[in-house]
Amino acid sequence: MKILVMGGVAAGMSAAARARRLDEGAEIVVLERSKHVSFANCGLPYHVGGVIKERDNLLLQTPRSLKASLNLDVRVRHEARGIDRQRCTVQVVELDSGREYEESYDKLVLAPGAVPIRPNLSGVDHPRVFVLRNIEDMDLIKGVIDGGARKAVVIGGGYIGVEMAENLRERGLEVDLVEMSDQIIPPLDREMARDLEVHMADHGVTLHMDVAAAGFRDRSGHVTVELTNATFIPADLAILAAGVRPDTTLARMAGLLLGARGGIQVDAHMRTSDPDIYAAGDAVEVVDFVTGQPALIPLAGPANRQGRIVGENICGRDTAYSATQGTAIVKVFDMTGGGTGASEKALERDGRSYRKIYLHPSGHAGYYPGSAQMHIKVLFEPETGKLLGAQVVGYDGVDKRLDVFATAIRAGMTISQLQHLELAYAPPYASAKDPVNMAGFIGDNLLRGDLVLWYAEDFPAKTSDGLILDVRSPHEFELWHIPGAVNIPLGTLRSQLDKIPRDRMVYLYCKVGFRSYLAYRLLRQRGITKLATLAGGSLTFCSVHAAPCQRLTAY
Amino acid sequence: MKILVMGGVAAGMSAAARARRLDEGAEIVVLERSKHVSFANCGLPYHVGGVIKERDNLLLQTPRSLKASLNLDVRVRHEARGIDRQRCTVQVVELDSGREYEESYDKLVLAPGAVPIRPNLSGVDHPRVFVLRNIEDMDLIKGVIDGGARKAVVIGGGYIGVEMAENLRERGLEVDLVEMSDQIIPPLDREMARDLEVHMADHGVTLHMDVAAAGFRDRSGHVTVELTNATFIPADLAILAAGVRPDTTLARMAGLLLGARGGIQVDAHMRTSDPDIYAAGDAVEVVDFVTGQPALIPLAGPANRQGRIVGENICGRDTAYSATQGTAIVKVFDMTGGGTGASEKALERDGRSYRKIYLHPSGHAGYYPGSAQMHIKVLFEPETGKLLGAQVVGYDGVDKRLDVFATAIRAGMTISQLQHLELAYAPPYASAKDPVNMAGFIGDNLLRGDLVLWYAEDFPAKTSDGLILDVRSPHEFELWHIPGAVNIPLGTLRSQLDKIPRDRMVYLYCKVGFRSYLAYRLLRQRGITKLATLAGGSLTFCSVHAAPCQRLTAY
Repeated sequence: MKILVMGGVAAGMSAAARARRLDEGAEIVVLERSKHVSFANCGLPYHVGGVIKERDNLLLQTPRSLKASLNLDVRVRHEARGIDRQRCTVQVVELDSGREYEESYDKLVLAPGAVPIRPNLSGVDHPRVFVLRNIEDMDLIKGVIDGGARKAVVIGGGYIGVEMAENLRERGLEVDLVEMSDQIIPPLDREMARDLEVHMADHGVTLHMDVAAAGFRDRSGHVTVELTNATFIPADLAILAAGVRPDTTLARMAGLLLGARGGIQVDAHMRTSDPDIYAAGDAVEVVDFVTGQPALIPLAGPANRQGRIVGENICGRDTAYSATQGTAIVKVFDMTGGGTGASEKALERDGRSYRKIYLHPSGHAGYYPGSAQMHIKVLFEPETGKLLGAQVVGYDGVDKRLDVFATAIRAGMTISQLQHLELAYAPPYASAKDPVNMAGFIGDNLLRGDLVLWYAEDFPAKTSDGLILDVRSPHEFELWHIPGAVNIPLGTLRSQLDKIPRDRMVYLYCKVGFRSYLAYRLLRQRGITKLATLAGGSLTFCSVHAAPCQRLTAY
Repeated sequence: MKILVMGGVAAGMSAAARARRLDEGAEIVVLERSKHVSFANCGLPYHVGGVIKERDNLLLQTPRSLKASLNLDVRVRHEARGIDRQRCTVQVVELDSGREYEESYDKLVLAPGAVPIRPNLSGVDHPRVFVLRNIEDMDLIKGVIDGGARKAVVIGGGYIGVEMAENLRERGLEVDLVEMSDQIIPPLDREMARDLEVHMADHGVTLHMDVAAAGFRDRSGHVTVELTNATFIPADLAILAAGVRPDTTLARMAGLLLGARGGIQVDAHMRTSDPDIYAAGDAVEVVDFVTGQPALIPLAGPANRQGRIVGENICGRDTAYSATQGTAIVKVFDMTGGGTGASEKALERDGRSYRKIYLHPSGHAGYYPGSAQMHIKVLFEPETGKLLGAQVVGYDGVDKRLDVFATAIRAGMTISQLQHLELAYAPPYASAKDPVNMAGFIGDNLLRGDLVLWYAEDFPAKTSDGLILDVRSPHEFELWHIPGAVNIPLGTLRSQLDKIPRDRMVYLYCKVGFRSYLAYRLLRQRGITKLATLAGGSLTFCSVHAAPCQRLTAY
């Protein structure tokens, strides 16, 4: 059997390696357009930033090492130009020599990945306007910085844009970040990105949101970035990180079916509409694990696993890829943020009903040094409590909680079941009631009717029918409070019950939602039933309203 | 309703707080023998070590704060002396005044915790021989250290003993650790503790294993610890951390049933044999989640959750506690180790059949700074692949993987399902194929018969029938190899097939098991079928045999 793999990074190389392990006798040829295979593409921004010092550390394998260990015929700087599905051949160009040749296949694997979107703007081809997709791109950007660049503009505030902005700051550049939506990291819900935005600004990144790049002008070899709001930013370089689209050129030319979202269509076995052609990675359309809808989710983890599954099926196994839940994470200076499963906006878009909670537990025991509060949001089904999605933003232990949520979602768990997870506790790592357990407690209370929540976005329109009652300390109240709120600290509430109205809604709140929950329980049992407590407390409120109150704090 | 709670720390206070939130009208009295309630008992070693600087940070609540927030009647330095189950009263002594009184209850909660085992040895009551159970104990120990102690002996190498040894080293003391079994952290399997032991020694702790304390002699107010192997260690203080036993004194006096393991017997609702008396925390006997056997598992997380469940059931809810899986973790200087579910020795004890794998992935992408290899062991059912237990030891990201395994075990997942977990990946946090995914790949390969493993403990007896083949580089081979092994590096294996015997077993190995897996696949498909690859490679081999080869390494 002859297996021809187009694309030599995550998905393609996983397919080739898995095929070799299952079929020592197969002829396996890997074509890669760039100069490198199996390079660490997720590490590129960090070499630009000098965090990863050695460029060679990004080059995990070479054609020679892959020949030795896996007997693969890897050809870099070779590009496929067309597929003849009748004859089962691919037209290949050796890029350095221009030589063209035909390569046959029994099974073909398409793993072309995604290409950075280059918006059709004037000056977008300016030599100081870069994308970051491979080692060559990285070398170019690094060359400009090493040559003394002082100022950069990053277009796009998604994962790559934010990582680039951080790493350019690491190199001492002034950085402006431009994002056309109203938040950075658009896969997160808007309020969950807020702390990350404040943190980026604290680290000297100038944020321009709700605005797009309009064009690029040459300035004596440097570049001026023009925004759609008539802002002009003179810079030494600009990075386009405005998203990616699946590279479907060859698939389309070959007449393979594309999916509703524009990616290569594959079945559960990662097979395209041609039974001899498989596809994997950022170029394919997957099923969203939570919504069941077709989706484009370009992530390294799924790409690797899809490639492996391609290798298995080519070699006669029957392995299915189920769906992608979109678990993703980003480091933003000292903070970490990410999500797994569906976001609230994705559920809204789908018309799915859901409930949501917020909490702000600390990453580990507050009395042990180095901990900080995190901001957790969990989405679940109203009737069953089945988990739909979770987002976590904070300092320590964020990645851990994301992975626990990701595992629980994959297992089909309910929010109530999170109460009973038995997670590893010692003071340097967690709390006896882990943040994930706490999410379970709160969600279960909500489902059982032990508490009624109100949400920051209810203010001011929906809360105007009642009293906003702040149960924090007078000192906290003085520093900041929700406009119009009155203050009765929790500790004095039992002696001031006469001050609580019974004829209209009482909207309780505190800093994170715990004291107001205690207040809720005591008032309700004293016969006060028009009552709700603010989900996530003032911390979530301030994220939703961009209010100038406290942010997440370290202990 | 009047609820009387005996014990004011984890389980007791959780029960009281939950009861209050569900029943604002109940009278709730909490009796605590020590001077403090709700203190951070897991933080005590770290205040001794000066890591937690402020003693007050350990005192999370006071009777006054609990009165204000939860309207609890908390009485410290009050001890229950007896229970009259007919009359539903408890005999109480106010320890400071000696005053005795009777307190009635409608529902009684026993949360007395566990008491440190004080072996019946000569001199065990010496004033420089301490236990560490509460704030008062901590103050005494800290006083001796602040007074200039230079040398300490810790008796017991479990979680507390190891934490104490570390923290005494943090204060600059010379530390000897004495453990009667052949390893530290006995809940871990023997080979998994090895790297932690080497690491402790690297940090200056003298380890005495397979030996017990025999007695304590006074030496001008200081203490000399005598061991059973006729070692005498002069020291300024000794810490007894030789395990704990459930405090069942009152329960026994009151005629409540105890379980097979000696803890207070409770049903799934945490109710004792008296329907008006509940119990929770370290004093109760639980069901082991994996083995289904009765067990004593004194851990803070389960204690808190059990207390909460007691509160719910007292207030008319119907909430069950299922079982304890024993997830635990310990910081050992720069390392972390822990386990969840059953260990191999627990499965052996139970006569359960199982399969096991080892792996040594890095905590996050090897090319991103700060990562190191970890040692993972996973146990699962031979037929179904259902997860039974996991242990992880290493540097970065150990707690995260433990929690993912703990969640997967609780969800009833199989090892094969771990392949498909979609965990959060960016280079600072993980690899595109997370260590947990890797465990899934290896375990699935094993279950499918894609590889056959041999184990370090097979050497030398069981491996004497064949050839031990090292597929690492000649340089690695030269530094250390398994006695008797021959070296054919993976990259040259295809050209030296004639050197591989076909008439007897070939025992492959490399450093972690990946290269030998590739060698296995290629040899087997070339018709060599008497073949196995070493689980966990030379790293696991050296842990099992205490061989002087490489340890876990940082990149």
